[in-house]
Amino acid sequence: MKLKEPKTVLRVSSFIINMSGTAGQVIRCKAAVAWEAGKPLVIEEVEVAPPQKNEVRLKILFTSLCHTDVYFWEAKVTANSYLIHACGLHLIVESVGEGVTDLQPGDHVLPVFTGECKECPHCHSEESNMCDLLRINTDRGVMINDGQSRFSIKGKPIYHFVGTSTFSEYTVTHVGCVAKINPAAPLDKVCVLSCGISTGFGATVNVAKPKKGQTVAIFGLGAVGLAAAEGARVSGASRIIGVDLNPSRFNEAKKFGVTEFVNPKDYDKPVQQVIAEMTNGGVDRSVECTGSVQAMISAFECVHDGWGVAVLVGVPNKDDAFKTHPMNLLNERTLKGTFFGNYKPRSDLPSVVEKYMNKEMELEKFITHAVPFSEINKAFDLMLSGESIRCIIRMDG
Amino acid sequence: MKLKEPKTVLRVSSFIINMSGTAGQVIRCKAAVAWEAGKPLVIEEVEVAPPQKNEVRLKILFTSLCHTDVYFWEAKVTANSYLIHACGLHLIVESVGEGVTDLQPGDHVLPVFTGECKECPHCHSEESNMCDLLRINTDRGVMINDGQSRFSIKGKPIYHFVGTSTFSEYTVTHVGCVAKINPAAPLDKVCVLSCGISTGFGATVNVAKPKKGQTVAIFGLGAVGLAAAEGARVSGASRIIGVDLNPSRFNEAKKFGVTEFVNPKDYDKPVQQVIAEMTNGGVDRSVECTGSVQAMISAFECVHDGWGVAVLVGVPNKDDAFKTHPMNLLNERTLKGTFFGNYKPRSDLPSVVEKYMNKEMELEKFITHAVPFSEINKAFDLMLSGESIRCIIRMDG
Repeated sequence: MKLKEPKTVLRVSSFIINMSGTAGQVIRCKAAVAWEAGKPLVIEEVEVAPPQKNEVRLKILFTSLCHTDVYFWEAKVTANSYLIHACGLHLIVESVGEGVTDLQPGDHVLPVFTGECKECPHCHSEESNMCDLLRINTDRGVMINDGQSRFSIKGKPIYHFVGTSTFSEYTVTHVGCVAKINPAAPLDKVCVLSCGISTGFGATVNVAKPKKGQTVAIFGLGAVGLAAAEGARVSGASRIIGVDLNPSRFNEAKKFGVTEFVNPKDYDKPVQQVIAEMTNGGVDRSVECTGSVQAMISAFECVHDGWGVAVLVGVPNKDDAFKTHPMNLLNERTLKGTFFGNYKPRSDLPSVVEKYMNKEMELEKFITHAVPFSEINKAFDLMLSGESIRCIIRMDG
Repeated sequence: MKLKEPKTVLRVSSFIINMSGTAGQVIRCKAAVAWEAGKPLVIEEVEVAPPQKNEVRLKILFTSLCHTDVYFWEAKVTANSYLIHACGLHLIVESVGEGVTDLQPGDHVLPVFTGECKECPHCHSEESNMCDLLRINTDRGVMINDGQSRFSIKGKPIYHFVGTSTFSEYTVTHVGCVAKINPAAPLDKVCVLSCGISTGFGATVNVAKPKKGQTVAIFGLGAVGLAAAEGARVSGASRIIGVDLNPSRFNEAKKFGVTEFVNPKDYDKPVQQVIAEMTNGGVDRSVECTGSVQAMISAFECVHDGWGVAVLVGVPNKDDAFKTHPMNLLNERTLKGTFFGNYKPRSDLPSVVEKYMNKEMELEKFITHAVPFSEINKAFDLMLSGESIRCIIRMDG
């Protein structure tokens, strides 16, 4: 299945042509382009236009990929689905467009697949990070300012993906999708905070909010689920119960604080019942990171009545229905969903970087592999085989 | 259909036989007994045994009734259903049993259909009021201490109902179901706080927690829904949208702060869509007080993404299924249920009485009718016809 023409999703990087004197000029560099769904990316030379109003052009040092990339690359998702996009990346501002006052060339930044305009009702709300202007849009392959792409190959446009497009040595993003971070932060580590790791960690610490000593169940032990477990560990949970259909996940998960493992396949009864029996009526908090609607229902029904909170993170299929008996709610359970761990990209991500700098959270254990940019397709293979949690792609290689 | 024998639900009151020197003795008094489902109550002379360990015997001055009484009276509910029981009543302690240290004869109290033992995990939790020991149990017609009823007629037991049994001039309850309140509080007003009024008010102020200036939708404008609206008014909501299938409710509802009225019957589209269009994407908070599962779904889907909170109060039928697309959750909506407005009876009700005393909330407008005890069946008629919000039953009449 071919991706829609001419929306050839851009995901690739290139080598730096020059580092100085490029402001206002087109930069020619290398980028890995997805020409066809499910086929290996091809490294091409692309032109990257200068940033326009409220835009910044960034030099990419490290990037990564996540299941969302693979999902779209395989073109499984319909146009209107929302996705938790999860691409780790770290960039340095190359130049800024008109109206950009809070960033300047040389700043270290994390770009994010969703944004924060700081002006809409969501940005004004303490509770939301679902910016009206810059909320993730998997259909929009162009910049908001003029409806055009900043990428091209020999004049033919190559389209952006979820506002970041980091498989390129240079990219252009809206300033609202860029978080300025501590320049002392190690670039090859904090780059993973752009995406799934913050999504999972924030789901626990910002939304589920377990108290010290409470029990937490994590459904799905991929990168997002392991980050949710890390959030539970950091919060002082007494028991962290990992739920996954793949028993090989448990060993890895122990590093993230998971104390017990439940494989739904090992039981004849629903996993929510298994967990309730293990925990005298249910866990205090649960976080669902698979996107399976059955796991969502189990994650909700396994929390204790009276105070249990279930948080949904994984993205469902478009025809799924969440279904439960309303008494499960009336018995004082809470069900919430979250997007990007409820972090506002610009306002909140810098403090997550500080959490790592202060050793309050660990990132190294998420980074299981690294490849040079020239081997980007290997990163896809590692993801598809389930071998990697996060594979860093070094743009200088 | 007859009620289960010998569980003849006791609900009635009597005249005082004596006021002094009764401690430790059987009291003979009048009570209204439901001998048969759906048939008028009959005033009988009953014997009320002295309170045993952790029990108190109370003299009832005012009582009331709610839809839960009518529901059970009509014997529609199966044994395992949970009910929001809503009986306003006000009592004075006549005598106390062994182990009761925080109440003494003469104290003014409100008994509640659910309880607070102060020792179980729920009572220790800041978030729950679903006491393991004393949580509402519509099947148990006897005292926990010895499995016996304290009521009898000529030696034949007459059974308690949800731990209060207030259609009797004297009753015996577990000390954990009794809140000691300010003796200066007017007995014929604060009696309505034992039940549905606290349920609705607490659902808004303790669970939905609207901020000043926010919009709130209330589904169902009966006593519980009007109390939820009062909670929104007290919280400073800018718009309170009342939803009811009966247009005659709106005039009454205005007194409780409801500013707009939506009758789902007036529209070809789902009411959640109507409300979203009225409010630029959805209300900030909603409170569902009907128990209709369709209203629950509408109440959830009408809240704004990013920060909307829907609170379920109404009790569903046992075969109902709450169903929604999980994206409605992932877009950062919250769905919660509540029981008795999340109030812990003993710890929290005294402060609700103070709210009335300080004129922070109004109670008079809930009390639309009053009848003497001898006309208790008229109170049932007023409830069935929908004429009354709360009808006070004066036990001295």
